[in-house]
Amino acid sequence: MKTIKPLREKKNTATLLIHCPDQQGILAIVTEFLNQNKGNIIYLDQHVDRQEKIFYMRVEWELKNFAIPTNKIGEYFETLIATPLQMTWRIYSSNTIPRMALFVSKMPHCLFDILARYTAGEWDVEIPIIISNHETLRPVAERFGIDFHYAPITKENKTEQEASELELLQKNNIDFIVLARYMQILSGDFVDNFPNKVINIHHSFLPAFAGAKPYHAAHERGVKIIGATSHYVTSDLDAGPIIYQDVTRCSHVDTVQSLIRKGRDLEKIVLSQAVYKHLQRKILVFKNRTVVFN
Amino acid sequence: MKTIKPLREKKNTATLLIHCPDQQGILAIVTEFLNQNKGNIIYLDQHVDRQEKIFYMRVEWELKNFAIPTNKIGEYFETLIATPLQMTWRIYSSNTIPRMALFVSKMPHCLFDILARYTAGEWDVEIPIIISNHETLRPVAERFGIDFHYAPITKENKTEQEASELELLQKNNIDFIVLARYMQILSGDFVDNFPNKVINIHHSFLPAFAGAKPYHAAHERGVKIIGATSHYVTSDLDAGPIIYQDVTRCSHVDTVQSLIRKGRDLEKIVLSQAVYKHLQRKILVFKNRTVVFN
Amino acid sequence: MKTIKPLREKKNTATLLIHCPDQQGILAIVTEFLNQNKGNIIYLDQHVDRQEKIFYMRVEWELKNFAIPTNKIGEYFETLIATPLQMTWRIYSSNTIPRMALFVSKMPHCLFDILARYTAGEWDVEIPIIISNHETLRPVAERFGIDFHYAPITKENKTEQEASELELLQKNNIDFIVLARYMQILSGDFVDNFPNKVINIHHSFLPAFAGAKPYHAAHERGVKIIGATSHYVTSDLDAGPIIYQDVTRCSHVDTVQSLIRKGRDLEKIVLSQAVYKHLQRKILVFKNRTVVFN
Amino acid sequence: MKTIKPLREKKNTATLLIHCPDQQGILAIVTEFLNQNKGNIIYLDQHVDRQEKIFYMRVEWELKNFAIPTNKIGEYFETLIATPLQMTWRIYSSNTIPRMALFVSKMPHCLFDILARYTAGEWDVEIPIIISNHETLRPVAERFGIDFHYAPITKENKTEQEASELELLQKNNIDFIVLARYMQILSGDFVDNFPNKVINIHHSFLPAFAGAKPYHAAHERGVKIIGATSHYVTSDLDAGPIIYQDVTRCSHVDTVQSLIRKGRDLEKIVLSQAVYKHLQRKILVFKNRTVVFN
Repeated sequence: MKTIKPLREKKNTATLLIHCPDQQGILAIVTEFLNQNKGNIIYLDQHVDRQEKIFYMRVEWELKNFAIPTNKIGEYFETLIATPLQMTWRIYSSNTIPRMALFVSKMPHCLFDILARYTAGEWDVEIPIIISNHETLRPVAERFGIDFHYAPITKENKTEQEASELELLQKNNIDFIVLARYMQILSGDFVDNFPNKVINIHHSFLPAFAGAKPYHAAHERGVKIIGATSHYVTSDLDAGPIIYQDVTRCSHVDTVQSLIRKGRDLEKIVLSQAVYKHLQRKILVFKNRTVVFN
Repeated sequence: MKTIKPLREKKNTATLLIHCPDQQGILAIVTEFLNQNKGNIIYLDQHVDRQEKIFYMRVEWELKNFAIPTNKIGEYFETLIATPLQMTWRIYSSNTIPRMALFVSKMPHCLFDILARYTAGEWDVEIPIIISNHETLRPVAERFGIDFHYAPITKENKTEQEASELELLQKNNIDFIVLARYMQILSGDFVDNFPNKVINIHHSFLPAFAGAKPYHAAHERGVKIIGATSHYVTSDLDAGPIIYQDVTRCSHVDTVQSLIRKGRDLEKIVLSQAVYKHLQRKILVFKNRTVVFN
Repeated sequence: MKTIKPLREKKNTATLLIHCPDQQGILAIVTEFLNQNKGNIIYLDQHVDRQEKIFYMRVEWELKNFAIPTNKIGEYFETLIATPLQMTWRIYSSNTIPRMALFVSKMPHCLFDILARYTAGEWDVEIPIIISNHETLRPVAERFGIDFHYAPITKENKTEQEASELELLQKNNIDFIVLARYMQILSGDFVDNFPNKVINIHHSFLPAFAGAKPYHAAHERGVKIIGATSHYVTSDLDAGPIIYQDVTRCSHVDTVQSLIRKGRDLEKIVLSQAVYKHLQRKILVFKNRTVVFN
Repeated sequence: MKTIKPLREKKNTATLLIHCPDQQGILAIVTEFLNQNKGNIIYLDQHVDRQEKIFYMRVEWELKNFAIPTNKIGEYFETLIATPLQMTWRIYSSNTIPRMALFVSKMPHCLFDILARYTAGEWDVEIPIIISNHETLRPVAERFGIDFHYAPITKENKTEQEASELELLQKNNIDFIVLARYMQILSGDFVDNFPNKVINIHHSFLPAFAGAKPYHAAHERGVKIIGATSHYVTSDLDAGPIIYQDVTRCSHVDTVQSLIRKGRDLEKIVLSQAVYKHLQRKILVFKNRTVVFN
C-alpha cells in the first residue's frame, strides 16, 4: 500500500555520532577534518556534560565532493581522529534505509499510527515484518501489505519462541525493533541482541507507575496529569534510557476508561516521536540516559 | 476492514442538549422531569453564562424503565418543559449511530487518524463516504473499504460539483461532515445545509494565521509556539466557533518544513478530539462560541 | 504593605460543599431547597463518581433575599436535607475571610509568590503569621509587615516546638497552613489537627520522586519532563490527596542546577494554584483523592 | 532589601555572540582561536539558518589563563576573526553586571515577580530605578528599596517626559528596559535609543490579539487556549522579535475576569523567562526573529 508520494527529500549525506572524554579542541578537530576534505556540513550539534566530562556530537555532511570514498570514511576517521581522542562513534549513510520490526499484541492505535506514517512516506524506513503474540491485528498488517508473524508466548515456549523470532529478525536484516504496545516482557538474552535498538512505549509518566496497569494506578492515586514514556528496552523493566515523554491533564471527572482513552493519543505520538528521532540518528545513550539532538 | 473488536460499550440512553434564558429552578425542573419518569441520570453537566444570562445543559439518562416511550420523549419534553422555559433543545438516542462524510485533498495524516479510530472501534460512527478533489487518497479509502468519490473543483464547476456532492450526502443520510485537510473553501450555500455540522481543522492557532500557508506565516513571524484549531465551518473563513485547540513549542531551529511536520501531529489529534466531542453530543453553539462539556 | 487596591469584588454569598451516597434526585432536592427560599444560585457544579457511587456538589448562592437567616442555614440544611440523604457537608460564608499560616525554611520563591498575591489583593485571605525553622526569610516577612516566628527544629525539641506552634496557630485563629518549601516533616499528631488543611508543595511529579532531592533523582533517571505537585498533607509522606500538578520539559542539556531553577517557577505557580482553589472552597476530599471544581 | 544569599555562582568568563554569512569552517576558526589562547570553553551553541545562510553562535570561556588581556579581546577578535569573516559580534564579561530599568503602571504581578527574583539573587542584575506613569506601585518599590520615579504621560507632555526619562536612564547607566505591564506606548524615537534592549510582555499569544484588551477579544472569539508573549519592542506595536511564549487552557466556563486572572500567572513567568535569557546573553536578533540559545 506504499502508494502515496513520499514527503521526504532525497539526501546524500553521512552522519557521525560521537561521544568521548571532553577535552579542548575536539569540535575544531572534527569540523576541520570535514572541512579539509570538502565535506559540506549541513547539521552540527554538540553537547558537553560538564559533570561527567563527556563530549557528544552529531554532525551530518554532504557526500558529494567529499574527498574520502564513502566506504573508507570509517577507517580514516578511526585512524586520524577517533583513536587519538578515545572516541566511541558510529557512522550512517543516508543511502542505507533502516529496517524495523514491529511487535504488537491486541491494541491497534500505535500500530496504525506507525503504518500511517510509513505509508504516507513520513519516515525513511522499511518495515518488512510485524510479530505478534495474538492474531488480532493480522487484518491490519494485511491491509498495509506487511508480513504478519503469529508467535504466541507461554511460560513454557518463551525461550523457543524468542529464538525463532530472533532468526526471523536476522533473516529480515532487522536493524531495530519497535514494541507498539506489545504486552510481553522480552527476556534479557533477547534484548542483549539489540542494545539501544528496542524502543518501547510505556503508558505512564515514568518512573511513576512502572509495571502493569498504570492507568488504574494513576486513577487510584488521583493524579492530575497522566503521561506516556518511550524508552530503549534494557533487561531492567521500564527502567531503560528515556527518549521522549509527554503528558495530558486529567481530573476527578476521569474514570480508568477515560484515562485509557486519553492515554492512547499520548502513547502513539510519544512512540512515533521516539522512532523518528531514532531514524534520524539523533539519539546517543550514555549511563542509561539519552542525548536527543534537536 | 472493520474487523477489530469495538472498544465502546453498548448503551441504551437518551441525551438532551438544552440552552435557554437563565432563570431560577431550571435545573431542578429538568432533573425532576427525568426522576419522576424513572430516568436514571448517568451524566449531567450544566453551565450558566452569567454575562449573557444563558443556561446550558447536557443530561443523559438510561431509557430502560423510562416511563415515556422513546419516540414520545421529544413531544412530552417540548410541551411540559421546553415551551414554558423558552428552551432550544435537541435529543439524541444512543441507538442512532451518526453518519459522517469525510472530505480530503492530498494530505493523508488526518484521514489515517480518523480511519484508524473508526476501524479500531474507538468511535460510535458510520463513515459511508469519502469525497475528494484529488485522486491521491483513493488507495487509502479502498484499503479501509470506504467509498471514494472523486469530485475535482474548478472555479467553473464549483456550484455544480457542490450540488452533486450535496445529493450524494443526502443519499447517504449524512449527519455531519469532517474536512480532514480539505483544501477547498465550501460555499456559504453549501455550508448552510449543515449548520454546526461541518468540522474543519485549521493548521494554526486561530485567530493567528487564518487563511493560506499558516506555517510559512508562523515561521516568518518567528513565533515560539505553533498550534492547530478545530472549528465548525461558517460562511466566514476560519472564523467559525472553535471546538478545540492545541499547541507545541518550536524555536529558531525550526524550518517551515519542520513546522509542517510537527503540525501534522497536532492537526490530527486536534481534529479527532473535535470529532469525538461532536459524536458524544457534548458541544453546544451560541453566538459563535462553543460550550464543550467534559 | 497591603496598600494596593484589591482585585476581588465584594460578594455576599454562602457556599455549600456536599458529598453523599449517590441516588436519584439529590440535585433537584438541593436546588429546590435554595430556590424555594429565594437563594439566587450563582455557581453550581456537581460530580458523580459512578464507580464509588458518591455524589459531590458545590453550590454558591446570594444571601441577599435568602429566606433563612445566615446563622440558621446550617441547622435547617442539616434537618431538612443532609440527615435524610446521609450527606457530609460544610458551609462557608463569603464574609468570613480564612486565616492562613505560612511555614517556610530558606527558599523564598514560594513565599514571595504568595505574599505578592496577598499584597496585590488577588486572594480573600488573612496571613497573620509566618513560622520558620530558619531566620533566613525574616527580612521578607518584615518588609511585607507579617509576624515572623522563628522555631528551629531538632530531633530533641520537635514535639515541644510543634506544641508551641500549635498554640501559636490557635491563638491566631488559623484555619489552614501552607508549607511554602518548608523542609521539615510535620508529625502525624500535628497534622491530625488540620485534616485536609495543610497544603504542601512537593518538587516532583508525584508519585515519581517522592522524598528528598527529587531534582537530583530526576536528573539521574534522565527524565524529559519535570513537575511539581501540591497536595494536602497526611501522616503518609508525599502521599496525601493531590490538588494540582504541572510540568515543564527538560533535556540532556539540563543540569541538576538548571532543573532546580526551572522547578522554582513550577513550584510557586502549582502551590499558589492549590491555595487559590482551597480559598475558593472548591476542593472536596474522599478516599485520598480530590474533587477540584472548576 | 537584598538580604538573601544569592543563588548564582561567581564566574569569570567572557561571552561572544556572533552572526555572519555562513561558510565552511567558521566554527573551527572560532574554537581554534579560543583554544590556541588557552580559553577553556564552558558553553558553545551554534545555529545555521540554511535558508538565510546565516551562522549564529554563542560561546563562553573562562578568562583565567586566557592569553589575551580581557580589555584587548575585542580588538584581537575583530582583527583576526571578525573582519575577515564579516561578523557582527558582541562580547560580554561576566564581571559586568547589567543595569535594568523597570517601567510599570498599576498592575503589580510582573513587578513583584521580578523584584522577588532580584531579591532572592536569582539574576545577575542591578535594578537602580522603577519608572511609572502612576503612583500606585510606589509602595512596592519602596519596600524593595528601589528608586521610584513618577512620570505621568499625557498626549501633551509625552515628548518632554520621554526626554527626561531618557536622561534619567542615562544618568543611571541603564543597559536595558523591562516593561512590566507598562500601559503606555513608547515613541519610536525613544525605542531607537535601545535597539533590542526594551523587553515587553504582551498579554496574548501574538500575533493573535495584538493591541488593547486581548483577554476581552479572546473571550469574544471563544478561543480554548490563551497565551502571553515577551518580545523586544520596535516602533511597530506588538510586532517586535518574539523571545518567549507560553499558553494555558481555558473553556466556556471562563469569563473575561477569570482569563485576566489566569493570564497574570502566564505574563509574569513569560516576562521573567525573557529577562533571564537576555541577562544570560543568549538572544540574537536577525530580521525581526530571535535565536534563543538553550
